[in-house]
Amino acid sequence: MQTELERKWERCKPAHVLTVEDWSVSEIHSILDAAETLSHAPKQFSGRGLFAANLFFEPSTRTKISFEAAEKTLGLDVLPFEADTSSVKKGETLYDTVKTLESIGADVVVIRHSKERYFDELRDKINIPIINGGDGCGHHPTQSFLDLLTIKQEFGQFNGLNIVIAGDIFHSRVARSNLDVLERLGANVYVSGPKEWMSKELMSRYVTMDQAMEMADIMMLLRIQHERHAVKMVAGPGEYHKLYGLTAQREKKMKKHSIIMHPAPINRNVEIADELVECKRSRIFKQMKNGVFVRMAVLKHVLDQHKGGFFQ
Amino acid sequence: MQTELERKWERCKPAHVLTVEDWSVSEIHSILDAAETLSHAPKQFSGRGLFAANLFFEPSTRTKISFEAAEKTLGLDVLPFEADTSSVKKGETLYDTVKTLESIGADVVVIRHSKERYFDELRDKINIPIINGGDGCGHHPTQSFLDLLTIKQEFGQFNGLNIVIAGDIFHSRVARSNLDVLERLGANVYVSGPKEWMSKELMSRYVTMDQAMEMADIMMLLRIQHERHAVKMVAGPGEYHKLYGLTAQREKKMKKHSIIMHPAPINRNVEIADELVECKRSRIFKQMKNGVFVRMAVLKHVLDQHKGGFFQ
Amino acid sequence: MQTELERKWERCKPAHVLTVEDWSVSEIHSILDAAETLSHAPKQFSGRGLFAANLFFEPSTRTKISFEAAEKTLGLDVLPFEADTSSVKKGETLYDTVKTLESIGADVVVIRHSKERYFDELRDKINIPIINGGDGCGHHPTQSFLDLLTIKQEFGQFNGLNIVIAGDIFHSRVARSNLDVLERLGANVYVSGPKEWMSKELMSRYVTMDQAMEMADIMMLLRIQHERHAVKMVAGPGEYHKLYGLTAQREKKMKKHSIIMHPAPINRNVEIADELVECKRSRIFKQMKNGVFVRMAVLKHVLDQHKGGFFQ
Repeated sequence: MQTELERKWERCKPAHVLTVEDWSVSEIHSILDAAETLSHAPKQFSGRGLFAANLFFEPSTRTKISFEAAEKTLGLDVLPFEADTSSVKKGETLYDTVKTLESIGADVVVIRHSKERYFDELRDKINIPIINGGDGCGHHPTQSFLDLLTIKQEFGQFNGLNIVIAGDIFHSRVARSNLDVLERLGANVYVSGPKEWMSKELMSRYVTMDQAMEMADIMMLLRIQHERHAVKMVAGPGEYHKLYGLTAQREKKMKKHSIIMHPAPINRNVEIADELVECKRSRIFKQMKNGVFVRMAVLKHVLDQHKGGFFQ
Repeated sequence: MQTELERKWERCKPAHVLTVEDWSVSEIHSILDAAETLSHAPKQFSGRGLFAANLFFEPSTRTKISFEAAEKTLGLDVLPFEADTSSVKKGETLYDTVKTLESIGADVVVIRHSKERYFDELRDKINIPIINGGDGCGHHPTQSFLDLLTIKQEFGQFNGLNIVIAGDIFHSRVARSNLDVLERLGANVYVSGPKEWMSKELMSRYVTMDQAMEMADIMMLLRIQHERHAVKMVAGPGEYHKLYGLTAQREKKMKKHSIIMHPAPINRNVEIADELVECKRSRIFKQMKNGVFVRMAVLKHVLDQHKGGFFQ
Repeated sequence: MQTELERKWERCKPAHVLTVEDWSVSEIHSILDAAETLSHAPKQFSGRGLFAANLFFEPSTRTKISFEAAEKTLGLDVLPFEADTSSVKKGETLYDTVKTLESIGADVVVIRHSKERYFDELRDKINIPIINGGDGCGHHPTQSFLDLLTIKQEFGQFNGLNIVIAGDIFHSRVARSNLDVLERLGANVYVSGPKEWMSKELMSRYVTMDQAMEMADIMMLLRIQHERHAVKMVAGPGEYHKLYGLTAQREKKMKKHSIIMHPAPINRNVEIADELVECKRSRIFKQMKNGVFVRMAVLKHVLDQHKGGFFQ
């Protein structure tokens, strides 16, 4: 009898990883468990002979290097693609560029692109798995998975957890995507931060930072984008920290087992007090470690499907 | 008894691969056969412990990544060289830069440089094989080899084949180089495209696109360089397509077994109709695949010579 | 009983390699001997499964590619970090960037940064070894080690050797660092070049280039930085060569066994006559080769300490 996951992979061949919305609750738990297992396993090199191509049209050192660490730990060979010196500048379409990588021998391609849902024009025509490394301010599934893995490692499950997402949720689709999936997994999700950044819909979940301290099991801080216009309208960095940041003062009021998360890079003393970045509650660098494990799980997963169990 | 190829390698040590003109007909068939064999072989890693350095002074994603895939498939370790942040900017000579890579341990170096015949100052002084990845608008031997392999795979040989090269042949030395070698191999080579782009010598081979359809076994389309002044003098992209491009209409008049080639990146609906890029006759993505195999063959060849049969 | 070196490593865990000043005479001899041994050894791949991250905030092709060759020869996997497209631009601190690499799985990090002693803020807080690939115009220990290895290979030891460092010693802390360590090792160190570039303290060691020819066992030429204001004040390149360079004329007066060194990239016919770059006395390309060996020794050393003898 087929599992839900097997049916899914049959539906869409090759198996792409594009948005968290495409994943059912049980599929998500499967990938998190696979990542957890990989985090304890010795390094594997069975993938040697397979090529991963990383196609980053936007700078993103952290995501790119995390994928590269995952690929190399799995024993994949990595084909580097420098988008700024590429044929894309000569007017080549995204489809032709990806098809070129497929022709040259890539077995899986990781793409980051500024255009939202860039993958819609690719998904049915490319014969190798595509892993979305971020599309515009749209989706970023492996970022969501690493957040989920960090929470699952801590609490074992998601049911009934109180999670407060603090910062510019409205403009961050990754945050809203996290909000959706956390609710699907059974958590209670609240939001905090400047009210100017909340939609009417979000306001029904609003708590102040001081309220958040007392009820949150998980404080998920978002990065303040200094370059964004919106921030200037609210407050300077120091003022922001005082009003909406996780200050050393506030941290003392947090529940005994509650934890702090942040996707990084961090603005110290803006979203979070300098001294809290590596405090006992902080899982910030743990999240980065987990980023490699979920990317390994995702890569292994699509290649197992695509290559008929190469890794098993 | 020595073969012609063995004598050649003895003549020039280390064995460089610089221009197609240096290669005899039988040597060319040898390298194509080696590439064909490699295309069927499982991936090899006997080269581990050897270093390939890729020295690209001009951006060329496609060629660079194809060489890198070839190198890694052979098990070579790759030394990346970023020319734009390099000592070359500090006024170092090309010779000193290549000698540095040799000293650091490169076993073979692939060079792309804007200066025509840059290799003349290097060939007798560098003690590792040099593979020319393109010199200015001069030579690009592995590009020629991949075109030849694609034709040989299709027709088994070159004798009597009618080949039409369409586009800006006059300014493309790679195209003229292809023209020469195809004739040496026994093919009948014609040219098409705007007459403004033809020399007197080329005009003796001129056919219109409509004539080409009816006699060509192979249509070799060239890329229109939008950045080139010449194009503007002729026609806009749409006009060009109608007058000199491979339109959907024209394709219907092609002979039953004839094929379409293009070096990519493609300008869709200029040189070729969008819908023909992946049509049954198109070998465009096959050419890219073959690019990796001919580069593997060339790398293996020079390293076998240089390292005394390391790969055998 | 503990050796001096063992005590040192115990003192500072993880073992960093930051400045030559931190190394005692016997420790220096140990690392040079390890490099010499590695230069004769077959390539080793026992390190596979370990990650080296190269964090270059300043362009330095030669140093970067030399480290990368060393890492790959040891079988390390390399995580590339492109500082110019990185989160550093988003205002991330150096500490957070390095901590990120540690979290992502780097086992050792090589850093080059324009800020002098950038490592002081890192050394006690980062849990993986840091190798200094150059800090501003400060330290560059592996460059010193490769100079020392080249001399030791030639003369077996340092006692009583006459070494003349010629060029802009005053502004080059690497040169002054070399001066110090060479004296600690027993050599007699002199300086030469434009007097305008000498401090009072350096003047007590001053010899003219013509005097240098007759007494030096080793001529260590420094690179003229054309971009530096100071040079213009002294002389044009041709004039500099005549007055302070190693001309073909001068070379003839050198002692029988004396050698020429230069860190490269070379300005031909400025610091040194074109025809002398690869003359019998020149060890310039030998120095580059040695750069890979000392970097292998240093990497192996810190990883052996850090990973408990992984490589043994």
